[in-house]
Amino acid sequence: MVGPRVLVVAGTHGNEVNAPWLLQQWERSSGLLESHGLDVVPVIGNPEAQRLGRRYVDRDLNRSFRPEWLEPDATTPQDQEIDRARALLHRYGPGGSEACVLALDLHSTTAAMGSSLVVYGRRLPDLALAAALQARLGLPIYLHEGDPAQQGFLVERWPCGLVIEIGPVPQMVLSARIIEQTQLVLQAALHLIAAAWNGRMLIPERLVVHRHLGSLDLPRDPQGRADALIHPELQGRDWSPLRRGDPLFLTAAGDTISFSGPDGVVPVFINEAAYAEKAIALSVTSKEEWPLSPKAPGALQDLLIRAQRGEPL
Amino acid sequence: MVGPRVLVVAGTHGNEVNAPWLLQQWERSSGLLESHGLDVVPVIGNPEAQRLGRRYVDRDLNRSFRPEWLEPDATTPQDQEIDRARALLHRYGPGGSEACVLALDLHSTTAAMGSSLVVYGRRLPDLALAAALQARLGLPIYLHEGDPAQQGFLVERWPCGLVIEIGPVPQMVLSARIIEQTQLVLQAALHLIAAAWNGRMLIPERLVVHRHLGSLDLPRDPQGRADALIHPELQGRDWSPLRRGDPLFLTAAGDTISFSGPDGVVPVFINEAAYAEKAIALSVTSKEEWPLSPKAPGALQDLLIRAQRGEPL
Repeated sequence: MVGPRVLVVAGTHGNEVNAPWLLQQWERSSGLLESHGLDVVPVIGNPEAQRLGRRYVDRDLNRSFRPEWLEPDATTPQDQEIDRARALLHRYGPGGSEACVLALDLHSTTAAMGSSLVVYGRRLPDLALAAALQARLGLPIYLHEGDPAQQGFLVERWPCGLVIEIGPVPQMVLSARIIEQTQLVLQAALHLIAAAWNGRMLIPERLVVHRHLGSLDLPRDPQGRADALIHPELQGRDWSPLRRGDPLFLTAAGDTISFSGPDGVVPVFINEAAYAEKAIALSVTSKEEWPLSPKAPGALQDLLIRAQRGEPL
Repeated sequence: MVGPRVLVVAGTHGNEVNAPWLLQQWERSSGLLESHGLDVVPVIGNPEAQRLGRRYVDRDLNRSFRPEWLEPDATTPQDQEIDRARALLHRYGPGGSEACVLALDLHSTTAAMGSSLVVYGRRLPDLALAAALQARLGLPIYLHEGDPAQQGFLVERWPCGLVIEIGPVPQMVLSARIIEQTQLVLQAALHLIAAAWNGRMLIPERLVVHRHLGSLDLPRDPQGRADALIHPELQGRDWSPLRRGDPLFLTAAGDTISFSGPDGVVPVFINEAAYAEKAIALSVTSKEEWPLSPKAPGALQDLLIRAQRGEPL
């Protein structure tokens, strides 16, 4: 019996080259990753941007999945990435010709995020899968929600979906270490999805999330140019709690601009190259331990079973 | 008395953002760098590529200074970078309206090159300045010459010129550490150029160069796609001698491809992001100690004095 169909996306950003390399090698050598009976569909998110070696052509594909832009008759901007978002949804979305129930979107970052997960909002199947992955590998979860400036993420358009985010690695650099980390997390995710489908996923009672609070930009001059830098004592310290007074930015004159609080917030995506244009030097989060809803594992399993039966998602 | 005019170029590659930031801050706060009586002319090499956040628009500007492309009546490709190379030479070149005698070209790299110099060929003034900088700061010198696949470097079109190359840093990432290193080397270079002009440059008797031997590409499949990765044990080991049998590449299946010799060659620019398109995974060099020609310091001083007097260069 073929299991539920799972979408694995690499190269949603065309200058993140490690996950596409992994999928390319997997295509040639199927033993590289075990699909555990799932019908895994690997796809390059933004092939045109990949060809150009750029994050995107017209706009960030991973901000282009806004529901109001994706209706067939929507009066929306026409560009490369919105067209691509529609095409991906049309084919692999919940009502698509090759409908996938779950999307794993593989990313890399110049920030020292290590191996981590990004979850959008609080959907029970997402939290169940993230919690199981955290219990298995120990990786941190960045819970992103409620930021009006950051919307339209790919995985939000599938009934269940996570971003796997690995760093640090420069854009356009193939790194054996980053590829190994990506492979490890992806392999664990496929194993756990198959386990959930079979009702055998081990579910922790609690999960630790780093809940998005907001983002900080570099100080800027009147022309909008960066007027200070991430402080070298902060660089690479993703996931380490900040305290009021900690060094945050450094000016060319050597003056330190300190963090003004509150104590204990946890920085993520420090100095991600692609976020400069979004006016994000780092984001800050609240580290929280949540009980996992007892309904969460069942919600994931139900979804997978319905998908495998071909029921509407 | 105003000293000789020195060109300082940043952003020759539009996605190398650290040196441009340093020059921008210097423009606003002249105390940031001491010009030691020199007439220093800071310029952004490729402003259009910088605006786009890309290395270049049509072709690599730092391969566009080929003499045969730069003649006024040359029948050459017309593109953004060749036009820019001509404009820079027309204004700041040896016969230009604001002729500069010497060019310092500030670069960054994703490779772990540390603070280093790149010298093109064996012109005596270049070697004198590089040797003095090495004696002062201890930094390594990569001597690039005789590679038919790599020609047309900016500094070759000035009577004296060096590249200052700092890494590792991702493309498009501002790094306080990289900027500090750039500032230190640039400051030392300006100090030494002024000292040479005044006949007070301390000159070592010898210099150590890493002479370019050639470049190695990743193994590729029949479609030209990378079929292996820089081995994690090689990553970051720029300037460390290789021995026959050392790990070089790693395949997706976990097989190591070893270095086949000769013993003792020294790798540089390991995994520089922008060199993938040039089919360069790393370059290899021969570490050599050379006596500095006794004529070298005088050649640099003569050049600077002639330039300062307005004599033809």
